[in-house]
Amino acid sequence: MQKRRLGPCVTFFPQPTTIISTRSEAGEVNLMTASWAGIVSKTPPTMAVSLNQGRQTYENIRATGMFGVNGVPSSLVLEADLCGVRSGRDLDKLETCHLDVEEGSVLPVPLLQQSPLNVECRFDREIEIGDYRLILGEIVEIHAVEAAFDEDGTIDATVFDPLVYLGGVREYWSLGERCGVAYRDGLKLLE
Amino acid sequence: MQKRRLGPCVTFFPQPTTIISTRSEAGEVNLMTASWAGIVSKTPPTMAVSLNQGRQTYENIRATGMFGVNGVPSSLVLEADLCGVRSGRDLDKLETCHLDVEEGSVLPVPLLQQSPLNVECRFDREIEIGDYRLILGEIVEIHAVEAAFDEDGTIDATVFDPLVYLGGVREYWSLGERCGVAYRDGLKLLE
Repeated sequence: MQKRRLGPCVTFFPQPTTIISTRSEAGEVNLMTASWAGIVSKTPPTMAVSLNQGRQTYENIRATGMFGVNGVPSSLVLEADLCGVRSGRDLDKLETCHLDVEEGSVLPVPLLQQSPLNVECRFDREIEIGDYRLILGEIVEIHAVEAAFDEDGTIDATVFDPLVYLGGVREYWSLGERCGVAYRDGLKLLE
Repeated sequence: MQKRRLGPCVTFFPQPTTIISTRSEAGEVNLMTASWAGIVSKTPPTMAVSLNQGRQTYENIRATGMFGVNGVPSSLVLEADLCGVRSGRDLDKLETCHLDVEEGSVLPVPLLQQSPLNVECRFDREIEIGDYRLILGEIVEIHAVEAAFDEDGTIDATVFDPLVYLGGVREYWSLGERCGVAYRDGLKLLE
């Protein structure tokens, strides 16, 4: 397949759309949208979020030692976009976006009420990469929307309706169709 | 919204489906599917991939100092799943999956021919997190499928048809509809 060279850049996708929720030392809640977020270990469960060292969210995480990572449903696409382009230093994003927080169960960390998937993280360490700081957080609890579970505990992903971000293309997309089941469907190729 | 506590685990999504391409010291190409992959810095452009220290791919990256990160189109869902569950020590995944590699432009790193988005990475450093190793790689070049660009250089994401992975739910999904344009649509909330 014919390809075009883009040079060394950050065009890569798909990515999650997440909102990072933190509190400042003075107690003010802030929200920041991040797509550079993901799981990095199962032993112990660890999440990584990368953000510019100049962000209010970075200051808050270092001051309080905790943060929430909140999945964004496609219904909150405008709110998520605004929470990515404006700083909490200039705008009360919760009020502008009509969003609310609730407290974590394990840590006194704010979590986004309107998110179907909240991850409570305790700051572990940071890694310096140019102007960015890769924050590692130990996952101490995960909350998932009750309505997504059936009686057997099976999860219906459509209830989460997760918003996908395409970095470089700068677009938000919804999920389409289920294409396969992991750790199972690939084995058909061995038959 | 009513939520259920899942405990400290790694249920988080959406995530990318990527295939990491490497070569052993002896020159054998290996492919490994990874969803714990993403951008972590723009200065310099840096990619992170987390993998178990016991994987052949980890050994290859440390031996050669380079790796490719290849986006997976939904048409390759079976192949991607198989490349995640079987080790290159037991199976020639390229032969079984009828996949091919081509050489990188900047580094002598194998890249997946059938992938619409290839990232060439030079090993930067590794971070130990339990049994896992978070590999940081400097992005030295990105290749994107030519057919996705129109005359103005605008990218049509549907040509990439990126496969989304839902960790915890263990499902692969395609993209649905475009819900918004980033760095723009959220500003409507300020009007």
